[in-house]
Amino acid sequence: MPSYQSLDAVKNISVVGTGTIGASWATYFLSKGFKVNAWDPSDGWEQRILSFINNAWPQIQNLGFIGEFKETNIILCSSLKEALTGTDFVQESAPEQLKLKQSLFKQIDEYTSKNIIVSSSTSGLIMSDMQGRLENANRFVVGHPFNPPHLIPLVEVLGGKNTDVLAVDWAINFYNKIGKHAIKLKKEVPGHLANRLQAALWREAVLAVQNDLASVEDINAAVAMGPGLRWALMGPHMIMNLTGGAGGYRKMLDHFGPGISGWWETMNENPQLSTVLKKELINGIEEEAKGRSIAQLEEERDEQLVELLIMLKRLKKTGH
Amino acid sequence: MPSYQSLDAVKNISVVGTGTIGASWATYFLSKGFKVNAWDPSDGWEQRILSFINNAWPQIQNLGFIGEFKETNIILCSSLKEALTGTDFVQESAPEQLKLKQSLFKQIDEYTSKNIIVSSSTSGLIMSDMQGRLENANRFVVGHPFNPPHLIPLVEVLGGKNTDVLAVDWAINFYNKIGKHAIKLKKEVPGHLANRLQAALWREAVLAVQNDLASVEDINAAVAMGPGLRWALMGPHMIMNLTGGAGGYRKMLDHFGPGISGWWETMNENPQLSTVLKKELINGIEEEAKGRSIAQLEEERDEQLVELLIMLKRLKKTGH
Repeated sequence: MPSYQSLDAVKNISVVGTGTIGASWATYFLSKGFKVNAWDPSDGWEQRILSFINNAWPQIQNLGFIGEFKETNIILCSSLKEALTGTDFVQESAPEQLKLKQSLFKQIDEYTSKNIIVSSSTSGLIMSDMQGRLENANRFVVGHPFNPPHLIPLVEVLGGKNTDVLAVDWAINFYNKIGKHAIKLKKEVPGHLANRLQAALWREAVLAVQNDLASVEDINAAVAMGPGLRWALMGPHMIMNLTGGAGGYRKMLDHFGPGISGWWETMNENPQLSTVLKKELINGIEEEAKGRSIAQLEEERDEQLVELLIMLKRLKKTGH
Repeated sequence: MPSYQSLDAVKNISVVGTGTIGASWATYFLSKGFKVNAWDPSDGWEQRILSFINNAWPQIQNLGFIGEFKETNIILCSSLKEALTGTDFVQESAPEQLKLKQSLFKQIDEYTSKNIIVSSSTSGLIMSDMQGRLENANRFVVGHPFNPPHLIPLVEVLGGKNTDVLAVDWAINFYNKIGKHAIKLKKEVPGHLANRLQAALWREAVLAVQNDLASVEDINAAVAMGPGLRWALMGPHMIMNLTGGAGGYRKMLDHFGPGISGWWETMNENPQLSTVLKKELINGIEEEAKGRSIAQLEEERDEQLVELLIMLKRLKKTGH
């Protein structure tokens, strides 16, 4: 049975790949007091990650973490090997290409101690495919965050066929210890869990446009002014549990289950993302945006997200 | 072309049917300064609606509406006819039985002026079936709220085959005027729109239990700690628009569309709500609830919902 780095001994974290997800992870780890060794093969990444951290830092400060960003806490490494030397935990956020990840994993396996957990941010790939027959495949896990990782608490954790269950537990404990909300997935499926749930909702929202049920803006409001307000507080099963009144989930399942099952029968169409449909979706969003740029909309979202997280923290819902 | 009651002239609202939804509507209308004439055929409804209003009133006061609840603003009527006499708007929230609604609509049509809009809270029935060939079918609309209506802004508005489009517009304008967020549905489909979107997400959440992807509690967290946080702020199309980075919805559709379409192919199973599956769902919720009663969970939800609405109001998102 392999034994892994003690949770309390983790001081240095390697952030491999510093696109949007990697840079956001680096920001989060730094805000929690870790030293970060970052590396990315692209041109100009050093400037981009520092710029990302400087922009995101005030959001995290609003959430109640203390201190200013100290640039000396992050080392911008000139090679993967340098970034992995002496590390206590690796968060890999490279592009979603299987061959690239396989080759990267091989190097990571070589350059790190065998007792170090390596966690991949992959959203679309399967760990069993990525880890293959690495010598120490046991310590490779998926730790899939939700964008932006420095704000959203969720991390989905699972292993591949050759991953040790203790490595999965280690990662869950580590993420929870540093203020994330880690959940354990028991099976490898495309999209993991949260993105599948999101894709299910999005499919019905795309079908509503395809079938001309309502405008794109009204479909958005059908979520954000309605059930979406509750989904920020409780998951879909708990919401349905409360739909049953005093009779709880059993009452809901008996009373509404048959009716909703009937709707499901009418909800098995897969939209074809044709040129025409795409144009309708894009036009609808442009109408709703009323001239606001993507950057402005992102700023609105993140400002509101920070306020929401502060509120939930106050109500004792998150460990943030 | 029929002409309807002027929006500014609406002073008296009839609330027909005072179960959870009707009582919550009554509370909302009263908080907005309307006189309410309520009626329900069940035993003891007078006590129940007053108790509901007294419980819900402090929540609405927290949202920034002014004044104490004045019992003289609601008349508990002893007959449907009395509740409809001199009314300016009817909100019907009777049980979801087609024959019952058809018979009720006939009486409402008879007892009210022809220029008064009648709005049904129905979640599961189709207006064309309910209105049939009523003499003044033109003024009957669906105004479907989301539970609890005194807190959640969304109202879905649509007409049946014999509804006047101006009556639909009237209802949308009226709901928006009094602080709700009304959306216009262009077609009659089972479950309207928001409940279908909710059912799509719930289906995938039920399948995740059936397929043993994760525990019920972890599936709930996969929403409430992840994408659910964003759905309280923006609808599914706007979220996807921001997933594309600076390239917006077009970039997202081109880049992620094919992958997600592939997941959709694996998401066409309809769960069978068998005894075994129901038991798993119920057990999972009981584990997560850790002894909290339905009433306690509802109280938590509503407390958090009020805080969330206050926050969104502050950020200028809702008219509440």
